[in-house]
Parts: sequence; C-alpha cells; structure tokens
Amino acid sequence: MAQNKIHIFDTTLRDGEQVPGCKLNTKEKIELALALENLGVDIIEAGFPISSPGDFESVQQISAVIKDATVCGLTRAVKKDIEVAAEALKGAKRPRIHTGIGVSDMHIKTKFNTTREDILVRAAEAVRFARNFVDDVEFYGEDAGRADLAFLAKVVETVIDAGATVVNIPDTTGYCLPHQYGEKIAYLINNVPNVDKAILSCHCHNDLGLATANAISGVINGARQIECTINGLGERAGNTSLEEVVMVIKQHESLGLYTDIKTELLNPMSRLVSDTMRMPVQPNKAIVGSNAFAHSSGIHQDGFLKNAENYEIIRPEQVGADSSKIVLTARSGRSALAHRLQKLGFNFNRNEIDVLYEAFLKVADEKKEVGDEDLKTLVADNHPEVAIA
Amino acid sequence: MAQNKIHIFDTTLRDGEQVPGCKLNTKEKIELALALENLGVDIIEAGFPISSPGDFESVQQISAVIKDATVCGLTRAVKKDIEVAAEALKGAKRPRIHTGIGVSDMHIKTKFNTTREDILVRAAEAVRFARNFVDDVEFYGEDAGRADLAFLAKVVETVIDAGATVVNIPDTTGYCLPHQYGEKIAYLINNVPNVDKAILSCHCHNDLGLATANAISGVINGARQIECTINGLGERAGNTSLEEVVMVIKQHESLGLYTDIKTELLNPMSRLVSDTMRMPVQPNKAIVGSNAFAHSSGIHQDGFLKNAENYEIIRPEQVGADSSKIVLTARSGRSALAHRLQKLGFNFNRNEIDVLYEAFLKVADEKKEVGDEDLKTLVADNHPEVAIA
Repeated sequence: MAQNKIHIFDTTLRDGEQVPGCKLNTKEKIELALALENLGVDIIEAGFPISSPGDFESVQQISAVIKDATVCGLTRAVKKDIEVAAEALKGAKRPRIHTGIGVSDMHIKTKFNTTREDILVRAAEAVRFARNFVDDVEFYGEDAGRADLAFLAKVVETVIDAGATVVNIPDTTGYCLPHQYGEKIAYLINNVPNVDKAILSCHCHNDLGLATANAISGVINGARQIECTINGLGERAGNTSLEEVVMVIKQHESLGLYTDIKTELLNPMSRLVSDTMRMPVQPNKAIVGSNAFAHSSGIHQDGFLKNAENYEIIRPEQVGADSSKIVLTARSGRSALAHRLQKLGFNFNRNEIDVLYEAFLKVADEKKEVGDEDLKTLVADNHPEVAIA
Repeated sequence: MAQNKIHIFDTTLRDGEQVPGCKLNTKEKIELALALENLGVDIIEAGFPISSPGDFESVQQISAVIKDATVCGLTRAVKKDIEVAAEALKGAKRPRIHTGIGVSDMHIKTKFNTTREDILVRAAEAVRFARNFVDDVEFYGEDAGRADLAFLAKVVETVIDAGATVVNIPDTTGYCLPHQYGEKIAYLINNVPNVDKAILSCHCHNDLGLATANAISGVINGARQIECTINGLGERAGNTSLEEVVMVIKQHESLGLYTDIKTELLNPMSRLVSDTMRMPVQPNKAIVGSNAFAHSSGIHQDGFLKNAENYEIIRPEQVGADSSKIVLTARSGRSALAHRLQKLGFNFNRNEIDVLYEAFLKVADEKKEVGDEDLKTLVADNHPEVAIA
C-alpha cells in the first residue's frame, strides 16, 4: 500500500514565495507552514536559507514548530549553501536538504561553463556533504526536462550511490508534453540500476499550462513525490497546483494511488495563501476558483437540477468549497427559474412559468445576474395576487 | 499540409459569456468577435440564439460584420432551436449550426429519460434538419467523456451519415486524463468507418486542471479542431485556454501541426477579454499572466542573464507580452543586482558588489520588491562619491 502513496512536497514557501509581490515575513511563513502541516502535506520546503538572513530565520523558526512534516531547505551544490541550510534546519524533527545542479547541456555549458563529467563529480560531492548533516537528502537535476536521457540516468544513479533519498526531475522551463515527461520517468525507472533505493520526484512548471498533467504522467510512470504549490504559485507561470494533482489522484481511483491530504481543507488553504501572499486566484481556477462550482447555462442548470453528477465530478464539500451555485442569467432556462422561484416560496404551474420566463429574459438581457430581489419584483409585476413583502 | 492544420474554434462569446458576471451586450460582443477574427480564429461561436432575444440579436449582428471566419450558433437537438439559429445566422458568409444531445448513459437516463436508440434517432434528425439551412453542421455528443465508447462510435457514424461536417467530443465534466481522452479519439479514428468525411473536435473542461493537456492529446491522436476560449473562461473552472494550446502546438514542432493564430496578438487579446468581461487573469496564468515572463530567484536570474533560453522557452514578444522582467527581491543574487546597477549607470567591481549586496539584502528582507529608487539610495549611502541625483 505504502508504495502507492504519493508524497506531497509543498514549495509554496520557497518557489511560491520568490514570486514578485509574494514575499512573506517570518511570522507569515510560520502561519502558512502550520496550515500546510494541518492540510496533510508530507514535506514543507521552507526556504532557501543562504539567500538572505530573513529567509534563514524563517527556515529556523519553521523547523522549531513543525512536528510531523519533513522540513526542507534549498541549496545549490555548494558547500557554503549546504552548511547554512544544515544550520537553519538544526531544530527540525525531520530535516531534509535539497541540493542540486543543472544537468542539461544548455545549463552545463552556458550557466556552469563546464563538462558533464564535472557535473557528476559536483553532484555526488554535494549529496555526500549534505549527508554529513542529515539522513534525508534530495537531489534536483535542474532542467532535467531538456537533459540528455542517458546522461540524466547516469546522474540519478550517481547521486543515489552518494546517498540521495529522493531525486527530483524538474521540467524547469515547463516545456515537456505529458507523454514525454512520463516517458522520461519510465526510462529512469527501467534504466537506473539502484533506482529502488530512492523516490523519484516530479517538479513541473506551468509555462504551457501542462504542469498538472505532467506531474500526473510522472506518477503514473513510477514517480512517488510531486512538488507543488497552493494555487499553482511559483516562478513565471507557476508550478503544479497542489489542489489539482491531489484531486486528480482522488477522483481517478483506477490509478491505485493516494495522498494524505485532507481535501476538505483545500479551499480554506487556498484563501489563506491568496490573502497572505496577496496573489489573486482567478474565478475559473480549477478546484479553488470562485466559479469552480457555479452553473449558469440553461442546458447545464436543467441537467444539474435533475442530477448533480450530470455536470459535477467533485462535490463542493469534498474540497471545502461553498455549495454549488445556480446563477440566473440570460442563458438560464425555465427549470432554473422555476427552481429558484420555488426556493423563494412561489409555486407556479408550467404555463405561468412560461409567461414569467419571457419577462425574466427581458430583465436578464439588461443585467449580468438576476438576484432574488429582481425575481420578487418580477412576481409582483406579473402576479400581484401572490407577491410577498 | 492542410491535414495538419488545427482549426481553432473560439467559444469565448458562448461558453465564456455564460459565466456569472461575464454577460456582454451586443456592442461588446461585436467588438470581441472582430478582435477574434483579427487574431486568426477559424470559427467564432457567437452565441446560443434561442436563449434570449439579446443573444439572438448578437449572433445576427456578428454574422453581418465577420468576413473570413465561420460564425457558429449553438442549439439543442430541437427543431425550434435550429430554426432560430438559422435565422440569426442568415447574414453570415460562412454560417455553422452547432447542434447536439447527451450521449452518456447518465445523461440519457437522468436528463432525457430515454434510450440509446432514441438518442441516435434524435441526433440524426437534428443534423439533417440543420443541413436544410446551412452546409456546415457540427454535432456535439454531450458528456462524450463518460459515454460508452462503442455507442459513441455509433453516434459519430450516424451523425456523419446524416451530414455532420464536424463532430465534437466534449469532456463535459472535465473528468478525463490526457491519455484516456487521446485513446477515445484514437478509437473513433480507427473504428468509425466514415470518419474521414468529418473533422473530430476536442471540447475539454478544466475541472481538474487538465483541459489543455486533454485537447493536445486529442489532436495528437487525430482530432483536427480545438474548442477553446481566451483566458480559459467558461462554465465552472472553464474551458481549454486558446493561448495555451496554440503555444503548445507552436513550440512543439515535432508534432507536425500548426494553427493560423497570430501569436503576437495573444496578450493584447487576453487583456481585451479580461477588461470587457470583467474577469481577472491571475498573475501566474500561462502565456498571458502578468508574471508569465518574470524571473525572481537568484539562481534563475543568474542563469537567465547568461542565456535567456536557460529559463525561457517562449520569447515574450512572440506572444505580445512585455519583455522579460528581472525583479529584485530578497531571493535575488549578486549577478541580478550588478545587472540592474549597471542599467542605472553604476559600474562597481566584484568586491564593491559584495558589500552592496549585504546592504541590499537588509533592504530586501523588509520589502516585497526593491525598485530603482531604493537602489539609488543604497548607492548614495555606500558610495557617496558616485551617487547621482
């Protein structure tokens, strides 16, 4: 069973927090870390300790308060980074150091101005050095999405030999198609001899809108950790959305996978992050957008009222959202109008509804949304005998 | 070559416009329709003519002004709907009627209270009736994502026989995984004997964040039309984002597919729709979000300044976005600081930058973003000899 658990690695406080406008102070970071632990996240990436004194302090204080989740600090494959991260994580019950280096030829040449051989040496040294401080070391091969596959396999084998417990395969530029990303993971599972000694992790970016699909393709093909953020925050177009991958895994039971996330906390968590990090969530965002459970077309409303499952695969209460909304607009049909009038205490017959519906459409063509007060006026105008105050 | 063209069917004015708060008046609908035609969209779904007198008028007026694109009106598989749509489309140069009915057993039983056989009859009758008015008839099999596959193939064969030129396979509830949706399309391509006489179309919803991936999986497997909206607007969590699928197809040349969209108009189009429909786009939205090309972490900024392609797969000007931003925050490194100071006219050596960087981090830990004025103050405090007014 445990082999089918997908570990949720939340990086809202690191990849999300580095976004323009999202910077948090230590108090805010602690509040979000506690909420993430309560949500059921397995690993909290708390920050990049060497980046600034403020971030060092945040990682240190988060390490002190988190009880169950693993607390992780990011580093480059540089001794000083690793020492500083180890120091920040000292008080953590389950500390993890996340270290790594570029592995695509483009990164190796234009960023590091070095060779593949040198990258292998630096990667192994960084992992071994980190293992002096903690038992749990994750390695990231930056830009793995564009790396030579045979070389990537060599990198993965080398860092596992050096003691890495988790190996992160990032699609740093958000370039891969889902089947391509899945094939990469499958290749590593099938070609890295010691792959069973570590967990492979998906870290996908959303530049082409494919981060959720890529991460899911990764776990279908054998990865067992997903790196993600609340509301899909992160560099540029962001990371995989935690709420989306968790609900894909929950809804698709045939995948045989599960997470430990308490899904009914997803919407409150989304609002807390949006408020604290001052980053709006668009109304049509999956799972946590304000319209995610709103039905407005006549065809949909009629079908929904007959059987919610006609149009809804997730019940709003499963993800802590307000219950499904039937919004009356000029695209609504007779059945939605009758339903709402009934809720207001009016019982009209079919002919009466037909007449009221024509009057309703005239109002609706002028307005974005027809509210209860509009309906009462409508009834008062057409049926003064039943109108209520 | 034409076989590899993916037709872009925009439904911003129909599936997008039915969203709570998005209702448009006729003038606004015409403005957006003209902008969509200019963008290079192949088909504009202009509305649902029978739904209200206002929508009828919009479809009529859009039909009168659009020259190159096909103008499409939605109907149920009901004679009255089709007659009204035909009337609204009378002035269109290239009119299309989009008619259909539920094809999953859940919809057949709980929405229509009928049998599969009856659905086949009604579907064929609706298509034949629509062909009396126009040569281009698209059929949608609602909830095809959950329909029995053999029955779905029978529906597709039947409506093509009846004269459908396009058959839309909607994942109405946004439930499918990308490989599942692709397999459905492949099954239809391989098992419907007359499938070469029509185009299969992908209409995917984003309830699990997979709409873009599902549509792409559809065209990889043989579909040749994608139904989508600007900014991914639409019922609940919305539809496939036009800007995302267009850029996936453009960036992945190995797919051998293309669209006629002028990609440099994507960002202006996104802003026009967001403003006119009063629907915000979140900063981390792919392609059109305000942060889609913003780099903020030190590791990314350093790599980006060495070679933009290290972190960017799309040049912002390709999609009409402002040029890439390097935002200075507490996660920025020395190279980004030096770069920005240089842009301001200061040339410091490495040691000087080291000292300034420590001072910079103190400021950055207190602020969300460090602006040019902050930097000038920093320089004035540390190097009064070079500070400029």
